[in-house]
Amino acid sequence: MKKINTSPISGMQELLPEKQATFNSLKNIIGEVYHCHGFLNIETPIIEREEILLAKAGGDTEKQIYKVVKTAEAKDGADQALRFDHTVPLARYVVEHENDLAFPFKVSQIGRNFRGERAQKGRYREFYQCDADVIGRNSLPIYYDADVIETSLDALLNFGLDTPVVARISNRKILSGLISELGVEDKSKDIYSIIDHSEKVPAEETEAAFTEIGLSNEKKALILAFMDIYGAREYVVDKLRNLGVGDQVFNDGVKELDIVLGLLEADGYKENVKADMKIVRGLDYYTGTVFEYALPEYQQVGSIGGGGRYDNLTGHFTEQVFPGVGSSIGLTRLFYVLNENNLLKSQVERPLEVAVVPISENEIEYAFKVAKEQREKGKATTVVLSGKKLGDKLNYAAKLAKVAIIIGEDEVKTGELKEKILN
Amino acid sequence: MKKINTSPISGMQELLPEKQATFNSLKNIIGEVYHCHGFLNIETPIIEREEILLAKAGGDTEKQIYKVVKTAEAKDGADQALRFDHTVPLARYVVEHENDLAFPFKVSQIGRNFRGERAQKGRYREFYQCDADVIGRNSLPIYYDADVIETSLDALLNFGLDTPVVARISNRKILSGLISELGVEDKSKDIYSIIDHSEKVPAEETEAAFTEIGLSNEKKALILAFMDIYGAREYVVDKLRNLGVGDQVFNDGVKELDIVLGLLEADGYKENVKADMKIVRGLDYYTGTVFEYALPEYQQVGSIGGGGRYDNLTGHFTEQVFPGVGSSIGLTRLFYVLNENNLLKSQVERPLEVAVVPISENEIEYAFKVAKEQREKGKATTVVLSGKKLGDKLNYAAKLAKVAIIIGEDEVKTGELKEKILN
Repeated sequence: MKKINTSPISGMQELLPEKQATFNSLKNIIGEVYHCHGFLNIETPIIEREEILLAKAGGDTEKQIYKVVKTAEAKDGADQALRFDHTVPLARYVVEHENDLAFPFKVSQIGRNFRGERAQKGRYREFYQCDADVIGRNSLPIYYDADVIETSLDALLNFGLDTPVVARISNRKILSGLISELGVEDKSKDIYSIIDHSEKVPAEETEAAFTEIGLSNEKKALILAFMDIYGAREYVVDKLRNLGVGDQVFNDGVKELDIVLGLLEADGYKENVKADMKIVRGLDYYTGTVFEYALPEYQQVGSIGGGGRYDNLTGHFTEQVFPGVGSSIGLTRLFYVLNENNLLKSQVERPLEVAVVPISENEIEYAFKVAKEQREKGKATTVVLSGKKLGDKLNYAAKLAKVAIIIGEDEVKTGELKEKILN
Repeated sequence: MKKINTSPISGMQELLPEKQATFNSLKNIIGEVYHCHGFLNIETPIIEREEILLAKAGGDTEKQIYKVVKTAEAKDGADQALRFDHTVPLARYVVEHENDLAFPFKVSQIGRNFRGERAQKGRYREFYQCDADVIGRNSLPIYYDADVIETSLDALLNFGLDTPVVARISNRKILSGLISELGVEDKSKDIYSIIDHSEKVPAEETEAAFTEIGLSNEKKALILAFMDIYGAREYVVDKLRNLGVGDQVFNDGVKELDIVLGLLEADGYKENVKADMKIVRGLDYYTGTVFEYALPEYQQVGSIGGGGRYDNLTGHFTEQVFPGVGSSIGLTRLFYVLNENNLLKSQVERPLEVAVVPISENEIEYAFKVAKEQREKGKATTVVLSGKKLGDKLNYAAKLAKVAIIIGEDEVKTGELKEKILN
């Protein structure tokens, strides 16, 4: 026989049943919380028109898109590829189904996306993303930014991790206005990028990078001071106002940040919500609120999710304007880092409640009935139908279930059943 | 702006939120029933080594496999393609993780598979399959065949359709033994195929096909009589024994059928379970029990799922023998036919319980708190944060939720809330 490699392809998650159960429980928590917050679930196809994906992609993403070869039997239609996020398919979905949706459209998407990135430990080429977005038609009030943050933060808090989760929130208008005020719009992209990377490098390196792009010492000092502004709403809003920036965009941004943080604080999210001027989010399309989730006790883990406000979801597909705000939890990567840091209580000790164990073949029919009754009580139940000796059967049962119900001649006769706790 | 086609690719399911909710509820029912019957859920990657997929595929399937082009950033590793079913990845999984699994391994897989077939109404190129399999190491008792059938039948019955669901069950050993008895082993493939197609063509055509492959009138009559054997266990087993076939394989098959039907009948499945000698299942790899689910009141719909026993799951990957029995529900196609025949009660009238409607911006903060309280009671709740007039807000709320809680100045002052039923 030709030897075939049976490992999954590099960059693809594959879990044993016990870990899969834990993964699924996190996925279900996210789904339930999104639903409970009023987000309607949709699923778009995994295979999309290449044209749709490329309209938005650009840059690195384009090099990571998996193209799909049309099959011998299905040669019709456009060139095809695998979606690399939920946002681009959502834009297509909103344009396609506009007349059947109620706006603002609060929508959730939970599923696998695909990026053929360079192989790296803890990075996946096939990964779950769990997105919650609110899409407006023509306009969308700022309050929805708080709605989206509250929703995804709630999902993460419901994981019940033994370590705090914090939403770090900023607003791109603030930095953008500050850059205008300083008259360094030409260095805007560099400044965003230096701030975005600042947490991954030593402080001196960040400072040197600002010098290198030609910022004066005065402006550099101001931006460095700006970057350090962090904390609760009132403190941060005061600090920002005290910078004495007159730029209108800057002040709009501060006002929006104040509203978003105000709603979250009023709803009881205090320690879990911080304004943080280091948050930029790399992606170009964010235009207002931006946020990231972090585990402050595990800084090396980096961002475990985030999102922000975008002026127009569908700019590539229609003249109409659909502003939105969205959040995404990268569950596959998050699950990996939670595991690596032993932050997941194994939520599933034994996957099943009951194993019904018939002693001989004569008791199998009765064992099926007993199992049926257990299931009708809502207990996940298996019948052990394999194995010769009772000991073997109980060893097998102990790997799966919390209790065994052994069925022998007596039990069939009397109908009296005993539960044996499996250790 | 360049005009871009925003429809999904042909052959891909894309649902509006309300239909998606109904689809999800069926998928969740299947997942819960599989779990409750003791099947452990796993997920394998959607992208597999092409070598793994081709080891098993062959025939038509090979022409339907979507190959994936490695990306500029991920050129490493084997040639890749999208999985076309759950069985081949399961075989790889069992070989790869053998030492970490408890056998018999009762396993469920629910996810999307991909086949680039010719476009046809109601056929999908991307589709959900919901599989339950039991995999033994070296051997697997016949009782598991009943376990798998009971499990998948239970899932379908839990849909609560307004029409009966029937499991049609046979055993390939019976037909195989009959063919030996008649000494027409050389026509075996043709006979299987004619029986498999017999329900899609007029009776005369089936008879003519048997004549064409050179069956004598006597043998033809016997096979036609055999094909008509249908009904409850006792009746069918008697009928089969009365054919007077001495072949051992035939008699083994009848015995296995008797055991499987006996367990199901004893468990209370009477009207939902029929022995049916027309069931062959096209796939070559079935070797014993075979079954299909049908809606007898909607014969044009055809099979809505099925499966069977296979001697060896992993023959292409290892010398070791892993016999199995499995069932698959093709949920995307099933959902399509249930919709087409109006067999789905819309399980979701309004997706949400509550819409909290602040009258002006002054009440938004309070509305967030009220929504939080509703969610803590387990009610899916949205806050209406958009729209100028109260009437607009209530119209929007009525599309989503069953009741509205309107928040004005008085409510904020007094904390007294009224629920308004939305019509």
